[in-house]
Amino acid sequence: MSVINKIGVFTSGGDAPGMNACIRAVVRTGLYLGKQMVGIHQGYQGMIDKKFSNMDSKSVAHIIQQGGTILKTARCMEFRTPEGRALAYKNLKEEGIDALVAIGGDGTFTGAELLSREYDMPVMCVPGTIDNDLYGTDFTLGYDTATNTVIEAIDKIRDTAASHDRLFFVEVMGRDSGCIALRAGVAAGAEAILLPEKETGIDDLIEKLEAGADQHKTSSIVIIAEGEKNGGAYNVAKHVKEKFNFYDIKVTILGHLQRGGTPSSFDRILASRMGYAAVNALIAGETRKMVGLQGNAMHLTELTEAINNHSFKLEDDLMEMSYILSL
Amino acid sequence: MSVINKIGVFTSGGDAPGMNACIRAVVRTGLYLGKQMVGIHQGYQGMIDKKFSNMDSKSVAHIIQQGGTILKTARCMEFRTPEGRALAYKNLKEEGIDALVAIGGDGTFTGAELLSREYDMPVMCVPGTIDNDLYGTDFTLGYDTATNTVIEAIDKIRDTAASHDRLFFVEVMGRDSGCIALRAGVAAGAEAILLPEKETGIDDLIEKLEAGADQHKTSSIVIIAEGEKNGGAYNVAKHVKEKFNFYDIKVTILGHLQRGGTPSSFDRILASRMGYAAVNALIAGETRKMVGLQGNAMHLTELTEAINNHSFKLEDDLMEMSYILSL
Amino acid sequence: MSVINKIGVFTSGGDAPGMNACIRAVVRTGLYLGKQMVGIHQGYQGMIDKKFSNMDSKSVAHIIQQGGTILKTARCMEFRTPEGRALAYKNLKEEGIDALVAIGGDGTFTGAELLSREYDMPVMCVPGTIDNDLYGTDFTLGYDTATNTVIEAIDKIRDTAASHDRLFFVEVMGRDSGCIALRAGVAAGAEAILLPEKETGIDDLIEKLEAGADQHKTSSIVIIAEGEKNGGAYNVAKHVKEKFNFYDIKVTILGHLQRGGTPSSFDRILASRMGYAAVNALIAGETRKMVGLQGNAMHLTELTEAINNHSFKLEDDLMEMSYILSL
Amino acid sequence: MSVINKIGVFTSGGDAPGMNACIRAVVRTGLYLGKQMVGIHQGYQGMIDKKFSNMDSKSVAHIIQQGGTILKTARCMEFRTPEGRALAYKNLKEEGIDALVAIGGDGTFTGAELLSREYDMPVMCVPGTIDNDLYGTDFTLGYDTATNTVIEAIDKIRDTAASHDRLFFVEVMGRDSGCIALRAGVAAGAEAILLPEKETGIDDLIEKLEAGADQHKTSSIVIIAEGEKNGGAYNVAKHVKEKFNFYDIKVTILGHLQRGGTPSSFDRILASRMGYAAVNALIAGETRKMVGLQGNAMHLTELTEAINNHSFKLEDDLMEMSYILSL
Repeated sequence: MSVINKIGVFTSGGDAPGMNACIRAVVRTGLYLGKQMVGIHQGYQGMIDKKFSNMDSKSVAHIIQQGGTILKTARCMEFRTPEGRALAYKNLKEEGIDALVAIGGDGTFTGAELLSREYDMPVMCVPGTIDNDLYGTDFTLGYDTATNTVIEAIDKIRDTAASHDRLFFVEVMGRDSGCIALRAGVAAGAEAILLPEKETGIDDLIEKLEAGADQHKTSSIVIIAEGEKNGGAYNVAKHVKEKFNFYDIKVTILGHLQRGGTPSSFDRILASRMGYAAVNALIAGETRKMVGLQGNAMHLTELTEAINNHSFKLEDDLMEMSYILSL
Repeated sequence: MSVINKIGVFTSGGDAPGMNACIRAVVRTGLYLGKQMVGIHQGYQGMIDKKFSNMDSKSVAHIIQQGGTILKTARCMEFRTPEGRALAYKNLKEEGIDALVAIGGDGTFTGAELLSREYDMPVMCVPGTIDNDLYGTDFTLGYDTATNTVIEAIDKIRDTAASHDRLFFVEVMGRDSGCIALRAGVAAGAEAILLPEKETGIDDLIEKLEAGADQHKTSSIVIIAEGEKNGGAYNVAKHVKEKFNFYDIKVTILGHLQRGGTPSSFDRILASRMGYAAVNALIAGETRKMVGLQGNAMHLTELTEAINNHSFKLEDDLMEMSYILSL
Repeated sequence: MSVINKIGVFTSGGDAPGMNACIRAVVRTGLYLGKQMVGIHQGYQGMIDKKFSNMDSKSVAHIIQQGGTILKTARCMEFRTPEGRALAYKNLKEEGIDALVAIGGDGTFTGAELLSREYDMPVMCVPGTIDNDLYGTDFTLGYDTATNTVIEAIDKIRDTAASHDRLFFVEVMGRDSGCIALRAGVAAGAEAILLPEKETGIDDLIEKLEAGADQHKTSSIVIIAEGEKNGGAYNVAKHVKEKFNFYDIKVTILGHLQRGGTPSSFDRILASRMGYAAVNALIAGETRKMVGLQGNAMHLTELTEAINNHSFKLEDDLMEMSYILSL
Repeated sequence: MSVINKIGVFTSGGDAPGMNACIRAVVRTGLYLGKQMVGIHQGYQGMIDKKFSNMDSKSVAHIIQQGGTILKTARCMEFRTPEGRALAYKNLKEEGIDALVAIGGDGTFTGAELLSREYDMPVMCVPGTIDNDLYGTDFTLGYDTATNTVIEAIDKIRDTAASHDRLFFVEVMGRDSGCIALRAGVAAGAEAILLPEKETGIDDLIEKLEAGADQHKTSSIVIIAEGEKNGGAYNVAKHVKEKFNFYDIKVTILGHLQRGGTPSSFDRILASRMGYAAVNALIAGETRKMVGLQGNAMHLTELTEAINNHSFKLEDDLMEMSYILSL
């Protein structure tokens, strides 16, 4: 194990609220431990383009509450090639960077794992994505904030749905993962939730809606995860409209506003703990691991394990409960 | 002029934040003046279906901060026929209602004008719509709140746009009116704004975006009013993408969340003043008028005038200013 | 174990965001399981005053997002006497109530434990308090929302602190418990945090502030839990002012706004799970227990255990981390 | 009239939401018109300490939504002396600054007026204060945002007031001016409002509260402006408690959170218009004036007039209306 003097930190993949709070924690923990800290801009692309900047305590002042990422993020095809990684490593070495903290999702982890293995570079990863689809942590960074953003939007939609006696289909983010849809659905009191992980046919859905109508519900909200099997909110609405005319039907796709916003208290604390733990783990000689929240404690998971066990951690009890509580 | 003993209040057309605050003001002002107050549910449909309920002070307690309308709103085709209005009038008379306060937009006013003229029923209207497209008032009820909702959403989108160096097209409400788009565009610091009232070709837009790129802007937001002439955000994005590849391009349609939410301070005060003024005007013998805010004072406008002068009150200086300030 | 047919639900002690979401879950779960559900108004006082009302599914519609408690809450001295409890029990029996779900804190649990033991009445408790000071659950209902409310306020205060180069002392709720102060302090990036559970003298505090000033910090925020040992924010400010003149000093007491507001996604889900679990536990024959969140699962804790182990669950690592991250 | 080449902009006095949006408008309008723009840090103190920095378009990117002021603000005793102003002028001249835009309140205007008169320096002022106590404009910068912040806080307090059947005294900012108290009181549906501009004795207040209690109001909110004549919220609460025991009584002082936060749409637009108008007026040869919003248009007012007519623009009709609507 080589001595670590200079640590690079970067964000990669989709941005998530809390990334800045995590960058702050990484930088200040490193400085406290006497290390030099470098920000790498635009993720792996920045390694190739030499977008490095030294970071001191002031560099991360007043960012704990900011959405997005001050280090920016980007996709980088070149890094997927051995030549790209060779160039990235060369640039990192020239800069004197001898360890990395990577904040992002599955793709970010894969890149970090390869670079670390090929060039024996210590890396520690932090799960940052609003989708909560990563193995080894109960909550990913940004998931709590995104869920709050979604329910604030649905609370507004509920106002107008109730005023007009309407049925709303609200599509939320989460390509392969119904985590946002499920939690937001429970928290918003949605009448039904359609997820990628569950087969819910249009007939099942209509049955639920009819049960609601029988109970004299005059408005309803259905949450639809974008990766759901019936083809998205517009398609579901179309099919439902053919067979069920009880309500006036509207569709809303919440879109990218789900990614932004000032992080919640939960995400700021999680970000701080994860960033702090990641640097401490690196210094303690750990590498190729992901920090994660399990129960109330920080745990390390092997990156290969995190990557290979893409998580389907739907809380099944929530699904059943959500239906009972909406009746 | 007959004596008014019992006043009916209703909301009609699209719901808008502040309608509940206005209902509260109407009911409590009427009660204070010794009148009986009746809530008519679901607008004109409720007159036909006899959906009346007596309202006391408690009926409107703790609603000043609620979005939507507790009296609900609905479209009513039947009221557009003379037979429908005859039935509505008969039901109102049976209920003892001898004057009306109507909260809504153009369509609501037209119905109120007809009923009032045909049956000599005193009516007073309040301009309630998020679109701000009514003549005779500087601000309609709900417009300020909707604009705040839009900029909060765009602030979130800006986080992710800036993190990814993206160009976002954000579509906002306002069928014939660019009022929300214009004010939200200025307030959100948008790089361009496309309105129904202005011809802005794709080439003009690309020119602006290129000017921004020349200035090293790495992300941009374009606001698009839904009634704009190029066919909406998706079409604009498609056409821009063909000729301008500087940024990664994304589209968000904000949708119905713009209608809901707790009303802003501005809208609660406006709603209170308008409701208070409407009842006082009725009692003073006024009829077939709309209360409106002009400068800082309440003014009455003839309903026919309000209806025939559908407003295009775009503040032209804002348009030019918004471009200069985004450079 | 007797058969349960009719379940009463009530809130008691200080109100907390999420109580309504929990009432909704209790009522709808009970109805789903075929039970009759009764709301008891104003806690134990309502048992004595016979403030009972039958609750159906509609009674709890559209309350999941509301702060406060629709069943209200009150202190009740009479219930602390055997005579008071005898009367309460008599009234509950007359109403046909044969089991109770109590939502509240320590005092609520003590009352429930006594009534249950004295009259063999099945009771299940839900930990509802913003203070997070209860044993047997990682999070109490309302704690997450209150922490979000606090950091939103501090984010605003930070704007003005930074503009004026000021030092702000912000006092937050938590009589015996520093939970809100600690989490809010970490999440708001506070320069120091004073807690009831820790002795932090004025000199220690000044040392920290001087360290910040040496680092060219131009503004600072110190979070002070109301039960802290130096006598509250005004006293701390006074003592600091005598010895440390680097900044202009201001004090803000956040006060009761911390209790209200629409519950966060986290609290709505927690409330739903706890209410659902409480009714299911009652039906399964459990009694005199508290439902709690441990890790990601619901657990039952004996009421006596919950009451006797008033929790001091400060996360010590957070304290140290918060200081390092603020440097 | 001399040619203007380089314009300095600064903020002074208490900070207000929208100041950053105004700085952005001033800088970008100036740049668009071909002028050099300089930011002066910490108001008049910065002129004395030579805290100048050149500002380009990037300097004001992404600040339209930020509370506080990036140029900071400070009190400056030295500038009140002729020697101080002489030094300030000397420094401004050395920097090449030949005109000023000042954003602030009464004190800021007085300083600008003196400097301009003594040294023939063109100045244009923008009314920036949350208190809305300036003559010549219907709304000052930050007033709308502060009012929204206050009602959001009171909405939360109402949750807990209603749950406990309590009477809350909420003290809001406004030393000589009851503007915030009045508008927030109307918008929050307060049962009574105490202002510096009106004598409202404790007996009058108790009479109102008793009227509410007679109407079976179970909770009440009284808004108290800090400059009110009975000595502030704690004193009022004490005196009321002696004679009126209907409710449990609590006090909350909202404090400095009222100054911060992201500006509302209204304030961002007002800030943009005012900044834009100020620079255009300077270039057009105007000096020693304040830009203001009158009705919907920008107007210029002589600084001396603005200063000598400290505004008492309480909308009297609101006061009476607020009482009627709370019954």
